[in-house]
Amino acid sequence: MIIIGEKINGTIAKVGKAIVEKDEEYIRELAVRQAKAGADYIDVCAGTSPEIEVEVLKWLIKIVQNAVDKPLCIDSPNPNSIAAVIGETNKPGILNSVSLEGNKCEVIYPLLQNTKWQVIGLTCDDNGIPSNVQTRIDIARQIVEKADKYGISPDRIHIDPLVIALATDNSSLINFVNTMQEIKKMHPDLKVTSGLSNISFGMPMRRRVNQSFLSIAMFMGMDSAIMDPCDKKIMATYYITQALLGKDKFCRNLSVAYRRGSI
Amino acid sequence: MIIIGEKINGTIAKVGKAIVEKDEEYIRELAVRQAKAGADYIDVCAGTSPEIEVEVLKWLIKIVQNAVDKPLCIDSPNPNSIAAVIGETNKPGILNSVSLEGNKCEVIYPLLQNTKWQVIGLTCDDNGIPSNVQTRIDIARQIVEKADKYGISPDRIHIDPLVIALATDNSSLINFVNTMQEIKKMHPDLKVTSGLSNISFGMPMRRRVNQSFLSIAMFMGMDSAIMDPCDKKIMATYYITQALLGKDKFCRNLSVAYRRGSI
Repeated sequence: MIIIGEKINGTIAKVGKAIVEKDEEYIRELAVRQAKAGADYIDVCAGTSPEIEVEVLKWLIKIVQNAVDKPLCIDSPNPNSIAAVIGETNKPGILNSVSLEGNKCEVIYPLLQNTKWQVIGLTCDDNGIPSNVQTRIDIARQIVEKADKYGISPDRIHIDPLVIALATDNSSLINFVNTMQEIKKMHPDLKVTSGLSNISFGMPMRRRVNQSFLSIAMFMGMDSAIMDPCDKKIMATYYITQALLGKDKFCRNLSVAYRRGSI
Repeated sequence: MIIIGEKINGTIAKVGKAIVEKDEEYIRELAVRQAKAGADYIDVCAGTSPEIEVEVLKWLIKIVQNAVDKPLCIDSPNPNSIAAVIGETNKPGILNSVSLEGNKCEVIYPLLQNTKWQVIGLTCDDNGIPSNVQTRIDIARQIVEKADKYGISPDRIHIDPLVIALATDNSSLINFVNTMQEIKKMHPDLKVTSGLSNISFGMPMRRRVNQSFLSIAMFMGMDSAIMDPCDKKIMATYYITQALLGKDKFCRNLSVAYRRGSI
């Protein structure tokens, strides 16, 4: 499973403060720690007011690229911000994200043409997040069909079915898994991704809920996750589940991570 | 999911000591604690030398039945010991276990005729535990067919596919899940059960491995488990997974267990 490190996000209070104070060292350390802990991609999200978002993203991209060799996941609700900063990067990563809201696909997809960039597609549109599985599938299909027109193949698309809090909708996990299976039926190369913490919003023992969610989601074929690779307990669940899935020969990666103290 | 409390087992050092010392209060307390923690059945296993096994089982049964209202799971490798003590019980529970070893089915099944007793069927025979899925399925089918001759319906049978340590066989969980699905195809009323701790033998972070195993196994339809209901962490995983499966309306059971401090 592909791990997208979520820690460099301006909506997190300490990161927001580091951005305001231009604390390069703090951002640099978050990048290094995540890379060491096993992140495959480093997400960068400014989380600032729109006027300074592009400037902040450029600053974050520069620091992260100087600090680590991992590709970036450029994260903004504004597709024009993503378009304005993609030229600052030194290798292809993931654009986060498109959906059927507004003109997102139309702005983002041309950036992916004839490149190796990937993209996250959220199953929402101008009506918000659908409550049922079928509307999510329909949106995913349109995201994939639009991509095809730009020559973007399914293996470059991570669909995020937008997990609802279980406390709000008791069928949330079941819906997520059903949506994931329908997406894989749509095209076997499509990837499914998810944040890990939405499921547990408003529940007791949130971190344990996220851990059980991760084990089940990985077992059912989730391909990538936006998560905190420095959280030793969720990473323990990650290594353990890889082993349970038979994807860790002799449980070697789990044993090494354990001996190193990284889980 | 049905919880079979595993704590009253003479092979556990402290329990063995209590048996030798005739420490009724210790056994009583184990029964009460497990019942309070959520056990649906209380397993009793003497774990002594064969000569005194029947006497010890009778003693355990008497103490547990006086202490709690839960049905028993009578646990012995010797079917004749089970036959010798079933008359001591005050309500039907589970006989643990039959397999295709020796004459187990032939001794145990007549005890179940015209009763509401259930039985655990282990997928092994005189050749030991099979390493592949197909032989397990074949054994399960024979266990079920033999039961049918005694009028024992599939809903009274818990098949235990005998999980191998993941450290020994990296496909162990996958094989368990595949076996479980084949058993359900054989007859939808058949139950699948498992001990939780075999999977993690020889691995680091055993308890966390057991927790991820439990989440995945429950998601894939495991009906009962032989486990320690007084282990707050595994019980947290149990309540959380029930909620994730949409089987805990408004996450109420999870919340109550959390507030009570029982997880």
